[in-house]
Amino acid sequence: MYSAGDVRSENVPDPEVIEPTDAVIRVGRASVCGSDLWPYQKMERSDTGRVMGHEAIGVVEDIGADVRTIKRGDFVIMPFAFSDGTCAFCHEGLQTSCIHGGIFGTTEVAGAQAEAVRIPLADGTLFPLRTRVDDALMPSLLTLSDVMGTGHHAAIIARVTPGKSVAVVGDGAVGLCGVIAAKRLGAEQIIILGRHADRIALAKDFGATDVVSERGDAAVERVRELTGGYGVHSVLECVGLEQAMNTAISIARPGGAVGRVGVPQEQTIPGSGPAFYNNVTVGGGPAPVRAYIEKLLPDVVEGKIEPGRVFDRTVGLDGVPDGYRAMNDRQAIKVMITP
Amino acid sequence: MYSAGDVRSENVPDPEVIEPTDAVIRVGRASVCGSDLWPYQKMERSDTGRVMGHEAIGVVEDIGADVRTIKRGDFVIMPFAFSDGTCAFCHEGLQTSCIHGGIFGTTEVAGAQAEAVRIPLADGTLFPLRTRVDDALMPSLLTLSDVMGTGHHAAIIARVTPGKSVAVVGDGAVGLCGVIAAKRLGAEQIIILGRHADRIALAKDFGATDVVSERGDAAVERVRELTGGYGVHSVLECVGLEQAMNTAISIARPGGAVGRVGVPQEQTIPGSGPAFYNNVTVGGGPAPVRAYIEKLLPDVVEGKIEPGRVFDRTVGLDGVPDGYRAMNDRQAIKVMITP
Repeated sequence: MYSAGDVRSENVPDPEVIEPTDAVIRVGRASVCGSDLWPYQKMERSDTGRVMGHEAIGVVEDIGADVRTIKRGDFVIMPFAFSDGTCAFCHEGLQTSCIHGGIFGTTEVAGAQAEAVRIPLADGTLFPLRTRVDDALMPSLLTLSDVMGTGHHAAIIARVTPGKSVAVVGDGAVGLCGVIAAKRLGAEQIIILGRHADRIALAKDFGATDVVSERGDAAVERVRELTGGYGVHSVLECVGLEQAMNTAISIARPGGAVGRVGVPQEQTIPGSGPAFYNNVTVGGGPAPVRAYIEKLLPDVVEGKIEPGRVFDRTVGLDGVPDGYRAMNDRQAIKVMITP
Repeated sequence: MYSAGDVRSENVPDPEVIEPTDAVIRVGRASVCGSDLWPYQKMERSDTGRVMGHEAIGVVEDIGADVRTIKRGDFVIMPFAFSDGTCAFCHEGLQTSCIHGGIFGTTEVAGAQAEAVRIPLADGTLFPLRTRVDDALMPSLLTLSDVMGTGHHAAIIARVTPGKSVAVVGDGAVGLCGVIAAKRLGAEQIIILGRHADRIALAKDFGATDVVSERGDAAVERVRELTGGYGVHSVLECVGLEQAMNTAISIARPGGAVGRVGVPQEQTIPGSGPAFYNNVTVGGGPAPVRAYIEKLLPDVVEGKIEPGRVFDRTVGLDGVPDGYRAMNDRQAIKVMITP
């Protein structure tokens, strides 16, 4: 990506092991993330460009001299953030705050919308799968690198537990995975806020019990009607814009919680007063998907959850520019890349 | 109070039972709350004025026909909010969101800086003490009507548990009770952010292990130095101003929590980005002190905690105007009223 709207597929030098803790993986499948659309809409022109992409699965092609647990030939899930696996935050399961960590697809660390990608801190970062898995599971395994773990994080922070009422703000791929997560955690009522017919249909398949297609005050009123006037215990905020957060806080039940995973586009959180007077907690941030893979993988392998269904378009590397355009225009929910 | 700065002690008609669920209590002791200082600084002129005060202990003088558990002669703690004790939120221990509840000392419901006060929903609201307690405990019992329960709420929302590091933003009476609460819940390190010598001395008596008298960026830097560079697990925000909340979010450790109990004076919560990228949770609001009395009372009665020490001035009703002035000028930490 060279600037907003300017995505190109180019030949670049192959990534190589630089640090002895690095690995290089051959990308089997990658994808475009909703958060990639923020630079797609806003990025200033860069002469060198930025190798995008932070969601991938693939096979380890090379490892540095100090890599201990990851081996050549391993089939691995690459979480969107790299992490050393040994610091205080990694031990606490918050790998996205690793003191030596970072995110793929920045100007410093090249991303995975490519044939191959260098993985810093390979032992801490990569999750190897050493049992054979069916090819049909690949899309769902790919979601464990970000979007499914992110939806799960929103649900955890929003304190979804069995019997609770839940609202999911946003019907993008993260919101849809939020529905899966809420259902998996035992929510009794799952209200999806969104207005795209294809996404809503998928949300219902995933377990949404109610649909609210209104916005703003009308949406708040509708959610209250659906919840005996009180609002929901848990809100998953999967957008990142001020209006979405305002809605999220307004539809939370007193004492409820908002888990936000949409990358915030403003400097302040709205609704300070309503959140305070209703004792609504607001939390969330970059999901420690590395920690969540172990929890979610069995359900993926057993077919209990099918987050891979959020991919409704597949492209090769040459098709990536058009994939961005399609997601940005809401013509595709989420685009998978097969390099 | 007739307007900002205009507090008067006046003769008014005695309060009476109006609803059959009411009681009337003779006020033994009341107090001025830090939150009373917001109208003291900002209230617009009112012809009828507002009977202030939401913190009191006293003796039940009269009850309505439908009052079942509260009896004439009961010595009671009056929480700052009244509540029916039967709705969904009361059952969940969030009496400050009671669907029939409200706050004392508003234009609708007269307050307790008075000789007597009408108590709506007496059965749900009042906490009777039926064992004799020493007169010396009265100031500490009075704090269970608000300030001690509020400090406890901040600590609970900030997830203080044994061994954690805690910072308390604000050295007012709530902040000081926050120190007591953090210590009581087993915090290992308790950093008080404040700059008034008398308050800091009391904070240390209550269990504060470190003092940070800087403000803004310098305060953030100092807290980081004191916590190995990471920040604290739990922040108790006991002010309500934007700068305090900004500091609170900035000194929280990744994955940490801010419990805010200072009544927010702005419409937005600052620090959306830092809170998000560090997965810091922000919660809190009006404390359900009615629920906390049972938890805190034994420690008060046994003398394990002495929150009554936050009172450093006592006035009669005629002295209330000067009590407001003294608290507002930071000449008194907290003023007790003996009508």
